[in-house]
Amino acid sequence: MSQTRNVTALDLGSDAERDAFLDGYFAKCDEKLGFVPNVLAAYAFDSVKLRAFIDMVDDLMLGDSGISKLEREMIAVTVSAINHCHYCLTAHGAAVRFRSGNPVIGELMAQNYRAADLEPRQKAMLDFATKLTEAPDKIEEADRQNLRDAGFSDRDIWDIAAVAGFFNMSNRIAAATDMRPNEVYHSMARTTDGSA
Amino acid sequence: MSQTRNVTALDLGSDAERDAFLDGYFAKCDEKLGFVPNVLAAYAFDSVKLRAFIDMVDDLMLGDSGISKLEREMIAVTVSAINHCHYCLTAHGAAVRFRSGNPVIGELMAQNYRAADLEPRQKAMLDFATKLTEAPDKIEEADRQNLRDAGFSDRDIWDIAAVAGFFNMSNRIAAATDMRPNEVYHSMARTTDGSA
Amino acid sequence: MSQTRNVTALDLGSDAERDAFLDGYFAKCDEKLGFVPNVLAAYAFDSVKLRAFIDMVDDLMLGDSGISKLEREMIAVTVSAINHCHYCLTAHGAAVRFRSGNPVIGELMAQNYRAADLEPRQKAMLDFATKLTEAPDKIEEADRQNLRDAGFSDRDIWDIAAVAGFFNMSNRIAAATDMRPNEVYHSMARTTDGSA
Amino acid sequence: MSQTRNVTALDLGSDAERDAFLDGYFAKCDEKLGFVPNVLAAYAFDSVKLRAFIDMVDDLMLGDSGISKLEREMIAVTVSAINHCHYCLTAHGAAVRFRSGNPVIGELMAQNYRAADLEPRQKAMLDFATKLTEAPDKIEEADRQNLRDAGFSDRDIWDIAAVAGFFNMSNRIAAATDMRPNEVYHSMARTTDGSA
Amino acid sequence: MSQTRNVTALDLGSDAERDAFLDGYFAKCDEKLGFVPNVLAAYAFDSVKLRAFIDMVDDLMLGDSGISKLEREMIAVTVSAINHCHYCLTAHGAAVRFRSGNPVIGELMAQNYRAADLEPRQKAMLDFATKLTEAPDKIEEADRQNLRDAGFSDRDIWDIAAVAGFFNMSNRIAAATDMRPNEVYHSMARTTDGSA
Amino acid sequence: MSQTRNVTALDLGSDAERDAFLDGYFAKCDEKLGFVPNVLAAYAFDSVKLRAFIDMVDDLMLGDSGISKLEREMIAVTVSAINHCHYCLTAHGAAVRFRSGNPVIGELMAQNYRAADLEPRQKAMLDFATKLTEAPDKIEEADRQNLRDAGFSDRDIWDIAAVAGFFNMSNRIAAATDMRPNEVYHSMARTTDGSA
Repeated sequence: MSQTRNVTALDLGSDAERDAFLDGYFAKCDEKLGFVPNVLAAYAFDSVKLRAFIDMVDDLMLGDSGISKLEREMIAVTVSAINHCHYCLTAHGAAVRFRSGNPVIGELMAQNYRAADLEPRQKAMLDFATKLTEAPDKIEEADRQNLRDAGFSDRDIWDIAAVAGFFNMSNRIAAATDMRPNEVYHSMARTTDGSA
Repeated sequence: MSQTRNVTALDLGSDAERDAFLDGYFAKCDEKLGFVPNVLAAYAFDSVKLRAFIDMVDDLMLGDSGISKLEREMIAVTVSAINHCHYCLTAHGAAVRFRSGNPVIGELMAQNYRAADLEPRQKAMLDFATKLTEAPDKIEEADRQNLRDAGFSDRDIWDIAAVAGFFNMSNRIAAATDMRPNEVYHSMARTTDGSA
Repeated sequence: MSQTRNVTALDLGSDAERDAFLDGYFAKCDEKLGFVPNVLAAYAFDSVKLRAFIDMVDDLMLGDSGISKLEREMIAVTVSAINHCHYCLTAHGAAVRFRSGNPVIGELMAQNYRAADLEPRQKAMLDFATKLTEAPDKIEEADRQNLRDAGFSDRDIWDIAAVAGFFNMSNRIAAATDMRPNEVYHSMARTTDGSA
Repeated sequence: MSQTRNVTALDLGSDAERDAFLDGYFAKCDEKLGFVPNVLAAYAFDSVKLRAFIDMVDDLMLGDSGISKLEREMIAVTVSAINHCHYCLTAHGAAVRFRSGNPVIGELMAQNYRAADLEPRQKAMLDFATKLTEAPDKIEEADRQNLRDAGFSDRDIWDIAAVAGFFNMSNRIAAATDMRPNEVYHSMARTTDGSA
Repeated sequence: MSQTRNVTALDLGSDAERDAFLDGYFAKCDEKLGFVPNVLAAYAFDSVKLRAFIDMVDDLMLGDSGISKLEREMIAVTVSAINHCHYCLTAHGAAVRFRSGNPVIGELMAQNYRAADLEPRQKAMLDFATKLTEAPDKIEEADRQNLRDAGFSDRDIWDIAAVAGFFNMSNRIAAATDMRPNEVYHSMARTTDGSA
Repeated sequence: MSQTRNVTALDLGSDAERDAFLDGYFAKCDEKLGFVPNVLAAYAFDSVKLRAFIDMVDDLMLGDSGISKLEREMIAVTVSAINHCHYCLTAHGAAVRFRSGNPVIGELMAQNYRAADLEPRQKAMLDFATKLTEAPDKIEEADRQNLRDAGFSDRDIWDIAAVAGFFNMSNRIAAATDMRPNEVYHSMARTTDGSA
């Protein structure tokens, strides 16, 4: 990955032994999205780390769940807004715009979800993700019960927590390494019809 | 995993299709540690999530790195102390005691690493992990340079960030689910010779 | 202003006695921008308040200063990002995109200015605005001296403080009233040539 | 304004073109109060800024409103206490003492309004101003409804927000410039009969 | 102490067995100050607690030390300003005014010591007390060294810490019990000659 | 006390005039505990301070109260966990283990009391101590009423506040002086039968 050097502030070298699975995965990204997300390029210096990251993020963001893919992106962006993460706000802000078909909602999540006219279920979900991000030590049974009262199952609560937790990790890795998003994200899905 | 229910406050059910790899992994834990860590039992309701978690945590905490296994556990505990995470302070506090052969250093990390007589390298490492946990948006090039000045390579910086980031995720998943550590951790490695 | 009701969560009525100056000002906005910014519509229930607001904001953002108009918008967005202000991030994020002719820099300011490759002068300016926003009681002579060392005059320091202070006011009025930005801002200046 | 230099830590020069309106305004201050408040002297280096400031502050603090002049000063001091603003606590603490005819209530506002025996209406007003100062991004409809339930109209809510917002601006301009209050404020209205 | 009930929000009863020492101490207060400080009245429900409190506070604030009595009161007020403690700001603000013979310096300490023109020694002392109050876990050897560099002995450092620590206790007991200061404090030492 | 030098980072000398009472007190500690707690050794440079400290702490932690000795230690550890105080977490963590006969509960208090299965009374007590530690200025009558509703008398509320306040003092003196606990605490009461 020759561009790795530009993706973060760290000089991490490259992995000579990248296996066929990962080459295939990168090719699939290129085909589907038109580019390889820089976070993958950043992890590409080590195939073991890259693969563990891909396995986790793909399950979290694309796997079966009672939390819709758009809602998972909304959590990602809400957490990233609290942590002021340039990389994740750019990449997942684009994802919210894309998945919602609404260029405004992506900005709203990145600015302050409280200004959006959310249904109570999504409001409860983002309130929980916010508290979990800002004061994880203060989560109590009442917080879980709020989610159940808003219609979430225990399995849904796990998924909300897992996505919110994951971006508390990713935001910090991006911050620590000064990770730069692909420029293409900025213009993605800026119109209602999904075009740039 | 019949005990899953007790491990967290969530009723997550179990995964009927757990594969041979995971059965083997659990058996190996039992053999090596004498028990299966509750975090694995917590994830066991879904084999895909469990496997992704194992792959990531094993690489981070046990894989090759310029950061020693003890140092990685010190980061884990320092982050978990900021987030006041009962599960991680218990499990990784025990790991610091075990890996250092020093029951006091485990407590020190869980209380306040600044009270420990650390060498400058480890102090710089934990100062970085602390800032990354408390104010990720304020990390700048100067913070990375501090680590380089303390003798860390860029690859080491990645590993420090990755471990600190990971526990910012795990602390939150544990908090969100009220995850309970195995009782055995509390008495583990409480004496200098490593016995309980 | 019949649309006032929709601009904020408050029912403020309208001002029957709006004078010719303000009518002219609104007409000029419409002509120049193609719309009347909602913040003006929000203040329009009281001509005295509206005029005081216009006089202050026009001097601050458009008057003579050693701080360029783009830099003043950068301060506006940096302060609004700390306060997570939907209205100001939308309206002044668009202004940064427009004035810089660079759709990416507007997003960067709204996400985290530390991720932008700023010249030291602008970095010092935004660091000062950030401290003034987060901990005004801790500003000391050393902070002013930092600005002088970065090339700013005492008059420039006043202007930086005045703009940062102003958005700490506006962010709060917008938050308190749930002020909604004109939708047109979202798509403004999203391309390098300044078109939507 | 030869004394401008002493009023702040900035050397801002003076405005040779000060117009008759401002000369008259200063004369009126001198006549009414016995002195020109230093904040006006600080702004006097630029007549446009000075006049915009005067227009805004006079409307906010002295104009018609459902919030009494004393209550507006209570908001000013409550906000300034959170921001630890020497200038505003001195000048507006004196104003609370003067307007209430009670030297103790001025100190209470500057120390902690929660220690005062306030009627529920004023308590709700200051709780709102406090949240708006400390966490503007977390204001929600429920906060506005609390004010309505305490008897405030929507127009009153605007005024509370506008005063609280204004002092979040002024506190920061005073902090950034090290603005010094006139010494006379310290002894003003220290006795129940309003004398020094 | 019949007035105990009014001194705090708690109904603590009185101590039938108050001994001669304490009666004498109260009489001495009355003779010397013209009143018994309410904090003593608050503790008077239990002679053991009252005596322990008196012994500690008298040594801390009046005993031999390299930190002058005025400086100790400055620390008291600086800490109490951070904690917004009505009781301690009132009583010890009066003490700063009285001991300095300067009504303005008492207010400055209660508002923001950074706005006072302090000599470097006192500035260092109050910076330390502030960090110790806001982030005790982050005190390191460098902080102690700053005090030594400013001319303080190790014994002085103990005394600074002990006074700052004590008011972090007293502020909280006053807050928890809604302790009310004697009204006389408000007007004490408001003039340069020390009269009310 | 020749070991004083090692107990803190300060060189405080020793007190040549230590009286018989204190010698006796130290001897009693040695007899009862097998050692003299380092905090006493730290204060031993000045007999007046040492005696005032002993009088206060002995009344607070061992005197008559509606709050049990174990509960007082739970408050001590909860406060010390917020302040990340190495000395107090070590010494009072041991005390919780010893008084409860439960090695796990001591760790739980030091990590996060919210993870313990506490009865509502103790939960309310620690919630109050936490708020009093983190935001003393925000304590209101409703907080005191919560304690009354949980079964506490006004006298109990005083005692909770006094213990929480005391550790906010001690934590800071320990942090300021880098106070080191006796090593013996680490292994104390680690087993259910109270042995090491």
